[in-house]
Amino acid sequence: MGSVNVYGPPASTAVARVLACLLEKEVKFQLIPVNMAKGKHKAPEYLKIQPFGQVPAFQDESITLFESRAISRYLCDKFADKGNKGLFGNGLLERASIEQWLEAEAQSFNPPSSVLVFQLAFAPRMRLKQDPAVIEQNEGKLAKVLDVYENRLEESRFLAGDDFTLADLSHLPNAQYITGTDRGHLLTSRKNVNRWWEEISSRPSWKKVVEMQKAPPS
Amino acid sequence: MGSVNVYGPPASTAVARVLACLLEKEVKFQLIPVNMAKGKHKAPEYLKIQPFGQVPAFQDESITLFESRAISRYLCDKFADKGNKGLFGNGLLERASIEQWLEAEAQSFNPPSSVLVFQLAFAPRMRLKQDPAVIEQNEGKLAKVLDVYENRLEESRFLAGDDFTLADLSHLPNAQYITGTDRGHLLTSRKNVNRWWEEISSRPSWKKVVEMQKAPPS
Ligand SMILES: N[C@@H](CCC(=O)N[C@@H](CS)C(=O)NCC(=O)O)C(=O)O
Ligand SMILES: N[C@@H](CCC(=O)N[C@@H](CS)C(=O)NCC(=O)O)C(=O)O
Repeated sequence: MGSVNVYGPPASTAVARVLACLLEKEVKFQLIPVNMAKGKHKAPEYLKIQPFGQVPAFQDESITLFESRAISRYLCDKFADKGNKGLFGNGLLERASIEQWLEAEAQSFNPPSSVLVFQLAFAPRMRLKQDPAVIEQNEGKLAKVLDVYENRLEESRFLAGDDFTLADLSHLPNAQYITGTDRGHLLTSRKNVNRWWEEISSRPSWKKVVEMQKAPPS
Repeated sequence: MGSVNVYGPPASTAVARVLACLLEKEVKFQLIPVNMAKGKHKAPEYLKIQPFGQVPAFQDESITLFESRAISRYLCDKFADKGNKGLFGNGLLERASIEQWLEAEAQSFNPPSSVLVFQLAFAPRMRLKQDPAVIEQNEGKLAKVLDVYENRLEESRFLAGDDFTLADLSHLPNAQYITGTDRGHLLTSRKNVNRWWEEISSRPSWKKVVEMQKAPPS
């Protein structure tokens, strides 16, 4: 039995992405704490598996990997026959559509979202000052991205087509934090984005991740 | 015979990424101009295939796609038996390593690089004012990323292993512009990054793209 290890706290959006994928694929894993408050993500031992000094890092049998979206793709390919079998699509055309929206998440949705998550959700907890100009600018950027999503989700139940896929899943971590702040209307005021958000965030896999995020760090 | 169409100017880094991939895979294609100076990338017709109003857009038989890295993955999968057959690896582990470094490009290398490309290469041509603070900040970010690359390329000929892959290719468009400015030393002063850059940029496929970038826009 190979053991799958994920390094990092579930509260990290990038860690949460990998956890959601593991739970969808019904792959057993161990979560290994990385004490970021103590800077353990910059320690030489850790940099051997994540040279940029970020979480998550990942290990399965002989392979170690970093980058949450690369880890997620690997999990879908390696455990193709487990859990949610359609998560990464079947065949060339489905895969292409998933990749397109997974890249839209990484390139268009994530940059403004992750800034907003930091400013609105993490800064207050870390007693750091928020930057209103940065918030406003990224709110504007995200609104434009979500206008594109609203059109897409008017014609399609999920981003890549009729089924929930890795493309939808990849949005969950940032969307979860944003909908928990006073800027949640960015998602919930858009009819189709809201319908989509309600549907993807009520999946048992994601609810489990949110539970893990609430648990006190071990 | 299906026809492969790429929409957008080769001078765009994202378009150039797709062109390099097509040339590596020896796939015939047509380049369809999009007059960005006239705002054609924001025209309703174009937004049907690229809803974010960016270049490139892509079409092959019945499928249209956007996002340069998604298009590149599709090309490697669809034309697996053509041209450079190892471009996207063989088997699960090679693919995982390529995805890891392709994501490093997209998530870590590209953000500061694309800002520098805009500030140092495009702003002067467009007679826009450069922002020295933005340049300095992103130079610092890119230097840190390239320190990680320098270590990786000390132990490995290419990013994902012994062979040139999509992970290396994806860096070419931004690296080409940066090495053509007075900040080229960011790459060339690092021994292994420089060796790698010399090797990947002298591939016939990439030289062809650079030629296409020099040709006057049609
Ligand atoms: N692109 C990376 C992003 C990883 C990332 O930004 N992780 C954050 C937490 S969500 C982190 O480790 N931040 C600490 C740091 O950068 O020093 C991925 O998707 O895995
Ligand atoms: N993530 C996209 C980026 C596309 C992109 O940023 N294209 C630029 C040119 S390199 C563009 O169209 N800019 C015009 C605009 O955003 O209005 C991709 O890789 O395809």
